[in-house]
Amino acid sequence: MATYLEKLQASVRRSGSVLCVGLDPEPDGSDLLGRLKRLIDETADSAAAYKPNLGFFEAMGTAGMELYEAVLGHIPAGHIVVADAKRGDIGHTAARYAHAHLRAWPADAVTVNPLMGWETLDPYLTDAAKAAYVLCLTSNPGAEDLLLRPFAAAESLAHHIAATVGARRDAGTAGLVVGATRPERLASVLAGAPDAPLLIPGVGAQGGDPAALGHALRGHRGIPLVNVTRAIANAAEGARAAARRYHAALLPLAEPHV
Amino acid sequence: MATYLEKLQASVRRSGSVLCVGLDPEPDGSDLLGRLKRLIDETADSAAAYKPNLGFFEAMGTAGMELYEAVLGHIPAGHIVVADAKRGDIGHTAARYAHAHLRAWPADAVTVNPLMGWETLDPYLTDAAKAAYVLCLTSNPGAEDLLLRPFAAAESLAHHIAATVGARRDAGTAGLVVGATRPERLASVLAGAPDAPLLIPGVGAQGGDPAALGHALRGHRGIPLVNVTRAIANAAEGARAAARRYHAALLPLAEPHV
Repeated sequence: MATYLEKLQASVRRSGSVLCVGLDPEPDGSDLLGRLKRLIDETADSAAAYKPNLGFFEAMGTAGMELYEAVLGHIPAGHIVVADAKRGDIGHTAARYAHAHLRAWPADAVTVNPLMGWETLDPYLTDAAKAAYVLCLTSNPGAEDLLLRPFAAAESLAHHIAATVGARRDAGTAGLVVGATRPERLASVLAGAPDAPLLIPGVGAQGGDPAALGHALRGHRGIPLVNVTRAIANAAEGARAAARRYHAALLPLAEPHV
Repeated sequence: MATYLEKLQASVRRSGSVLCVGLDPEPDGSDLLGRLKRLIDETADSAAAYKPNLGFFEAMGTAGMELYEAVLGHIPAGHIVVADAKRGDIGHTAARYAHAHLRAWPADAVTVNPLMGWETLDPYLTDAAKAAYVLCLTSNPGAEDLLLRPFAAAESLAHHIAATVGARRDAGTAGLVVGATRPERLASVLAGAPDAPLLIPGVGAQGGDPAALGHALRGHRGIPLVNVTRAIANAAEGARAAARRYHAALLPLAEPHV
């Protein structure tokens, strides 16, 4: 059985891309499953990964979780699936969340929130076939409220999170969520975790620039996955053409890893 | 329609208690719904609130969310329901999570994680009938990793969270999650939010002491809900007797609010 890093590398090689397509079903639509399946089909050649956003499925209640299950079943086997769940809780509950989002709903990786401490990450990192992407420097304005402020002895809380995750040695893979909207802080945050695989939101509708991102990631050895959601799903030119455009724009980020 | 604070006060008055009973269904059991219904029936007289823990339901996949829906339907209408979901995400996604855990699955309140910044709390706080309990000082050892360390200009990240939440003026109610396991830090953290309603885990299996907790909360004006899960659900004496015992132990904390 392949490790997470082997599967990630194989998916980036096959697609020639670090593109991750976000799956955020808006509740006002009809035939949501059909539309999500088409979005997956039209972007499968261009993308290395999919990132379903659990909030959008949960908002539809139990029927939304049935939809989530059906969507997971439609993603081609070689693609990476990152469950964007941002879970974070203590011991026994964390183990239940890890089971939920890596097994019961079988994603390859899950996004996790480290606020409650390092022990709370352990249950997500027991299996070499799985990964957890730890929230580190997010793409929203509110990142300035806590993550970018001075913390303990570190330049910021984000620096402290990156350095701590970078020093972990788990069976599973510990990656980082770092937004594309602050390329000027990124290189310094990532200095503490030069081998961590990255999940990068903020390109597309949020305005992050692939070129500035590529510059910030020079020297970073871990494989990035760059997520684009609305700018592909809602593109006037169609999802297939938009995914190809992002595939091309992200080629410099894929190049060191193919 | 009652506000959240009115419903909370009425529930504490009716039960004469600040006891909150946790609902964490272990997946290895049979007739889970029957057992949860019995637990609710046997504790309804002693408790002001119930706290279903989403991780335990999600671990059972879509069937677990059907179970969650059925459990919500069985909780008596006057009791407070706190969805222990610990969600935290940016703008549009946060709005979807708020809809999921306050409407689609209709709890009165939800636990939320502030790591990504203050704007991420807004969607949970738009309705006077609802509340969000913000993670502030948790009951696990890992609280020392981030929450109890010096942050920006504050004594700790927990102090900063409490002071910021205490200064908010939202339509909905902003409370705090503060663990019972560190009574010696609690009074100083809560000085920044003297009116915030509290959700307090850590009594029972985690060893928090009701008497020390009562001492730490002297002078705090917001209504506390003190959660007990395993020490009631798994009590050798039965859930009814255990709930009555905690009801009695917590009387000094209820007294100022009845």
